[in-house]
Amino acid sequence: MKYGHFDDDNREYVITNPATPFPWINYLGDKDFFSLISNTAGGYSFYKDAKFRRLNRYRYNNVPMDDGGRYFYINDGDSVWNPGWKPSKTELDHYECRHGMNYTKISGEKNGIKAECLFFVPLGTWAEIQKITLSNTSNEVKKFKFFSYNEWALWNAATDMENFQRNFSTGEVEVEGSVIYHKTEYRERRNHFAYYSVNTEIDGFDTDRESFVGLYNCHANPEVVLSGKPKNTVAHGWSPIASHYKEIELQPGESTDLIFVLGYVENAEDDKWESKGVINKTKAKEVIAKFNTTAKVEAALSELRAYWDDILDRFIIDSGDERLDRQVNIWNQYQCMITFNFSRSASYFESGIGRGMGFRDSNQDLIGFVHQAPERARQRVIDIASTQFPDGGCYHQYQPLTKGGNNEVGGGFNDDPMWLILGVTSYIKESGDFSILDEMVPFDNDESLAQTMFNHLTISFNHVVNNLGPNKLPLIGRADWNDCLNLNCFSMNPNESFQTTENNSEGSKAESLMIAGLFVYYGREYIDLCKVIGKEEEAARAQQEVDNMVEAIKQNGWDGEWFLRAYDFYGNKIGSNENEEGKIFIESNGFCTMAKIGDDEGMCEKALDAVKERLDTKYGIVLNNPAYTTYRIEMGEISTYPPGYKENAGIFCHNNPWIMIGETELGRGDQAYEYYTKIAPAFLEDIQELHKTEPYVYSQMIAGKDAFKPGEAKNSWLTGTAAWNYAAITQHILGIRPALQGMLIDPCIPTKWDGFKVSRKFRGYTLNIEVKNPNHISKGVKQITIDGKPIEGNLIPVLEKGKTYNVNVTLG
Amino acid sequence: MKYGHFDDDNREYVITNPATPFPWINYLGDKDFFSLISNTAGGYSFYKDAKFRRLNRYRYNNVPMDDGGRYFYINDGDSVWNPGWKPSKTELDHYECRHGMNYTKISGEKNGIKAECLFFVPLGTWAEIQKITLSNTSNEVKKFKFFSYNEWALWNAATDMENFQRNFSTGEVEVEGSVIYHKTEYRERRNHFAYYSVNTEIDGFDTDRESFVGLYNCHANPEVVLSGKPKNTVAHGWSPIASHYKEIELQPGESTDLIFVLGYVENAEDDKWESKGVINKTKAKEVIAKFNTTAKVEAALSELRAYWDDILDRFIIDSGDERLDRQVNIWNQYQCMITFNFSRSASYFESGIGRGMGFRDSNQDLIGFVHQAPERARQRVIDIASTQFPDGGCYHQYQPLTKGGNNEVGGGFNDDPMWLILGVTSYIKESGDFSILDEMVPFDNDESLAQTMFNHLTISFNHVVNNLGPNKLPLIGRADWNDCLNLNCFSMNPNESFQTTENNSEGSKAESLMIAGLFVYYGREYIDLCKVIGKEEEAARAQQEVDNMVEAIKQNGWDGEWFLRAYDFYGNKIGSNENEEGKIFIESNGFCTMAKIGDDEGMCEKALDAVKERLDTKYGIVLNNPAYTTYRIEMGEISTYPPGYKENAGIFCHNNPWIMIGETELGRGDQAYEYYTKIAPAFLEDIQELHKTEPYVYSQMIAGKDAFKPGEAKNSWLTGTAAWNYAAITQHILGIRPALQGMLIDPCIPTKWDGFKVSRKFRGYTLNIEVKNPNHISKGVKQITIDGKPIEGNLIPVLEKGKTYNVNVTLG
Repeated sequence: MKYGHFDDDNREYVITNPATPFPWINYLGDKDFFSLISNTAGGYSFYKDAKFRRLNRYRYNNVPMDDGGRYFYINDGDSVWNPGWKPSKTELDHYECRHGMNYTKISGEKNGIKAECLFFVPLGTWAEIQKITLSNTSNEVKKFKFFSYNEWALWNAATDMENFQRNFSTGEVEVEGSVIYHKTEYRERRNHFAYYSVNTEIDGFDTDRESFVGLYNCHANPEVVLSGKPKNTVAHGWSPIASHYKEIELQPGESTDLIFVLGYVENAEDDKWESKGVINKTKAKEVIAKFNTTAKVEAALSELRAYWDDILDRFIIDSGDERLDRQVNIWNQYQCMITFNFSRSASYFESGIGRGMGFRDSNQDLIGFVHQAPERARQRVIDIASTQFPDGGCYHQYQPLTKGGNNEVGGGFNDDPMWLILGVTSYIKESGDFSILDEMVPFDNDESLAQTMFNHLTISFNHVVNNLGPNKLPLIGRADWNDCLNLNCFSMNPNESFQTTENNSEGSKAESLMIAGLFVYYGREYIDLCKVIGKEEEAARAQQEVDNMVEAIKQNGWDGEWFLRAYDFYGNKIGSNENEEGKIFIESNGFCTMAKIGDDEGMCEKALDAVKERLDTKYGIVLNNPAYTTYRIEMGEISTYPPGYKENAGIFCHNNPWIMIGETELGRGDQAYEYYTKIAPAFLEDIQELHKTEPYVYSQMIAGKDAFKPGEAKNSWLTGTAAWNYAAITQHILGIRPALQGMLIDPCIPTKWDGFKVSRKFRGYTLNIEVKNPNHISKGVKQITIDGKPIEGNLIPVLEKGKTYNVNVTLG
Repeated sequence: MKYGHFDDDNREYVITNPATPFPWINYLGDKDFFSLISNTAGGYSFYKDAKFRRLNRYRYNNVPMDDGGRYFYINDGDSVWNPGWKPSKTELDHYECRHGMNYTKISGEKNGIKAECLFFVPLGTWAEIQKITLSNTSNEVKKFKFFSYNEWALWNAATDMENFQRNFSTGEVEVEGSVIYHKTEYRERRNHFAYYSVNTEIDGFDTDRESFVGLYNCHANPEVVLSGKPKNTVAHGWSPIASHYKEIELQPGESTDLIFVLGYVENAEDDKWESKGVINKTKAKEVIAKFNTTAKVEAALSELRAYWDDILDRFIIDSGDERLDRQVNIWNQYQCMITFNFSRSASYFESGIGRGMGFRDSNQDLIGFVHQAPERARQRVIDIASTQFPDGGCYHQYQPLTKGGNNEVGGGFNDDPMWLILGVTSYIKESGDFSILDEMVPFDNDESLAQTMFNHLTISFNHVVNNLGPNKLPLIGRADWNDCLNLNCFSMNPNESFQTTENNSEGSKAESLMIAGLFVYYGREYIDLCKVIGKEEEAARAQQEVDNMVEAIKQNGWDGEWFLRAYDFYGNKIGSNENEEGKIFIESNGFCTMAKIGDDEGMCEKALDAVKERLDTKYGIVLNNPAYTTYRIEMGEISTYPPGYKENAGIFCHNNPWIMIGETELGRGDQAYEYYTKIAPAFLEDIQELHKTEPYVYSQMIAGKDAFKPGEAKNSWLTGTAAWNYAAITQHILGIRPALQGMLIDPCIPTKWDGFKVSRKFRGYTLNIEVKNPNHISKGVKQITIDGKPIEGNLIPVLEKGKTYNVNVTLG
């Protein structure tokens, strides 16, 4: 069963059946103000921080699912319905949801009335615009009652659902004209309020939820909508909402637009009040005025579209396969932008409460985003590095509102520092801006401790070198990339988190082969960087450390057929054929083959063959196998999951690309691409019902072969999967790979391909690349010409800004 | 509009209209296993700790309100309905809910089928029993489909609603016969599981919520119930539930009982499994077998009733006013037991997540509970004292599961220590058990630091003496009784809690007149205790300190017409006529008049007259006035509430009794009793709709005169209001007051009363007290006879256990 389809021309996914197997959502907003919106208009908005500045109340995991959002009700006398089907679920004559690039259009039609709803956050604006076009598609006059509905959250999403003995007494609103202002706690420490406006005179309103909905009614049948009579309530405590009421009359064929603005305002401390107890509304009114006509809204939407045209123009593939093209040109890039903006904070699986920006996550997210807006990537990588400790360790997370490190989670995840090298070098490779290395960057957000970014990289590199275990391999600390492999935790208390509980790493022998591979891979990036900027001595020193690590891996990290995963606290092997469960893992085999460790000895080929044999499935590569069937206190959270789920033998889509990239290093393009298509959502349209989550973006995990329902996906949207798959397909399979000194062309494609075309904007110029594969090989560049002139090797040097170059590549 | 009525003979409140203005709830369970149950069967169960061991998922502040509970569905072919009306809200032919003493009966009838549901937790049992009696009240054969429904929480109520990226992959169940076992995380660190059984063979089941309800359906119309076809699903992740399905056929007049058991089991670490992956069900089966027949269930209910007969027999008044009698004899005592059990952890206003047992709260709760079960009070007061610090300070809260102090909240609330004196002396006065003073009691739960309980009291007393400010008055610390008067907090960050944020008391001059009055009042109790146990020297020392405090209050705490409330950080007055807002407060005027400070100089009369004039309203006494209209950073949370709510001029029912008691000290019985009846729920039946919360228990707060809707109550059930009003009416108005060396008789009643009778069980004997008021005065005992023999004074000495005495009291 299919619930929708792609519309590539409009860069939209079109949902035609609202009862999708899970709410299928989209994201609105570019920088400070964000919204989540489902295909039935569920979801919520927030300003910068989904925990501390949430505008609307949204109840996760509710019954029914996805109950709460920006709802419009039409009472036409015969029936009550919503353009997005929910919450009334009244059957519509026509329904359609179009999720586009940071906008969503939902339209519903019933009994000759059509309601087309456009939702977006204009660029640089702290507000969500909702334009509702109401049309009479019948031959008779239509009179009906129209209601908006939005429930306010009391800002802090955590206490909003916990502290009722306080919350039920604090709610406050103001109503002025057609604008409803939500000002709870503005009287005290908050300098911000929210508002919900409509660009027309209204015939009534409500701001008290219980009065509007009725205590025992639900969103499907609010009392006021059913009766058709607003109560003009002003909320005092309990649960404030915002609902406008408007009586509409339309002649046959007539249309009218209503423009709603749901916005957020901050005022300076000395400018909070218009008069005693009356909030200063100036800024809100400015925003409302900015979007109070259809023309203005359409102009803002055009601006947003142009913004996305510009972003997506930077990498365009024409492969001949529309699935690959839409994946690379539209949806994967889009998801990369979203993960850059949201890290892991707010999705329909991430409640926006628990997690801030991850140190490791955000560095990885950069590799899928940096070409879209290098200047934003630059700021991000500086923000990230600012939460590093002077010894090279890092806060594992930081709060987006304050940019301060998250003390509750702390540090001690020993892979974190190496990812900073990835972040910084990715930025430089894309932008050519080496000046970031000279930026003075704080430690622990303390400006007085600032050192250059280059020193941060050196310190990051050294943090691994300074934390080696008995096998000369990196000590793992709390965890490496796999947050659930907790080798120093030994938790027996179910009330504590594996990530935040105290670690007992004193005397630990727990080492990580994943960090070892990571160190070799990004250590070489660091060495390359040192060489390019003339730090030959440091390069040589680092080379020695990398060589030592390679040797240690070959000596102590090779299990005979694949790379070990780790040594535990006591020095026992993990991910070895000696183990009964968890014999083999993705992570170490991914990074060690990416780094081609022991390639001459055949290690990489053996390792990847073992992955294929033992971890590959119909729906992707599982993280490890056999799955753990019992809790292993010495391994931690990984063994808490039922077999086939999450880190315990689930298909963790984030690290499948590491195997794809490893395969490209071996030149096995058919295998790399097969892995790619198994998890790329655009290739999974036929299993939408099983896959369950959105068919246009990656999910973090797909249930593995040991699970109850293999192929069922979970945790869509916010996952490093987006960036890594984008890197794998563009840089390693298509082989269009930014380098410190230009653009490397190094495809590794399926042998049956005749070639492909890519248009790539890079450092201010455009490369129109055409790759031809006359001999149907996977890898090996025979010749490259630029505007007809052949070059040596496969590195396109830095070219002149503003120009367009035709690059012809022949494999052979 | 009335929604129900009292049934005093059965000690029940009978609700006849299910659409109460707020869910009206009851509590089940006596010691370890507890349930909340609303009049429509909403609510949830937990084992000991409402945060860490929650059995069922319950969504607070949902739309519709109170959606989630133990639901039974009947599909009779024509309609789908629930005996408790919700969630289907199908109109019933008859509905009734009877909330009794730790049990609730809900019955519904429709189309000739009657379903009577009995809910209770048998004494000492870790399970809720649900007996459903299905009857055919028609003249024809009835065939229908019957479904149970219960949604499991994944144990930790906080992460259950936050951490979906994990939770959706962890859920696990087992189904064996008619029992559904919920074992999420049992595979790892948990040693406990839950189960839901029925004592009959079933015709099907479901354990996967989405399959049962349908993703976009709701509890009002679950897919499986509508179709009448269970799917026999076994949950893997997502949201596990338990639903039994049974086809029922009843002849005219026939009845059948179904007995459901919702239980909790803990197994030893080495006894967790029956076989690999299969949980050890032995203990669950034992409990199920214990309650598998109607006879067994009825016997258990009788046992519970006998338990309550025994408790409530200990104080029975016959006043001639049924409202007062039901208040004193049934509902106030019942609420005292509930607050003792739950502290402030779980109600329909307390989410069970944020707060454990309060040091201050639990000591005060004791005064309403101690006569019911002195041995439990003894253990409680030892648990409380064990969380004291060696310097006399105290953890403000402790966790019921571990009994360890709550580090997140910490200490520094400078009134806390004095309440321990109240707790211990209340216990001794009731029980006569002075041996508690010799108990060795830890500090900070560290046995190695243990000292005698008496030393704890000395150290508590000294903590005040050692923390005096410039006016020789007690420094307030984080707060005194009023958690929202934060004089050392200066919070500008809306994301921090006033209670848990770092205090800046260095150099503070913030002093509390409330603690000063408290110190004098309970300091004298301490002195009396010292004298009785022969510690004359300590008594003299303490007397000097108390005298000093009285002097300091008279010198620096008297504002001319009433007692000041406090001095702020800078030494400025709070609660003074000099202030524009917050001129006068309840707390200091309550405790200073209770302690009769400056009574000779007329201070008490003036202060109470000022309270009457400035704070008294139709619905009770507001906490302060005029209300604060702006945030005052130097005062903290109190000024964050809109005027008329909570601590900002709300009617805080907890401290109204302090004024009542103060009035009795002045002998003004009419005024004391008028205050009592204004807030006592049994007297408010006629304003049920305005009052909103349960008409059988106190609420923490009623909206004050400055509020939008004065008289509307919030935060019912878990409040010190219960204990204090019980103390005020029984010990100070009726004047039946336990003392260290017997029972004091000192009534202060309305002048119009002719008298009253009380039967009081005390220290193993029974006092049948009859008070006569021939001259219609308020206060003053002219003569007391015991079994006809007059005694000196008004203290009934300790009498012989096992006997019954007739005590005749004549006022005059």
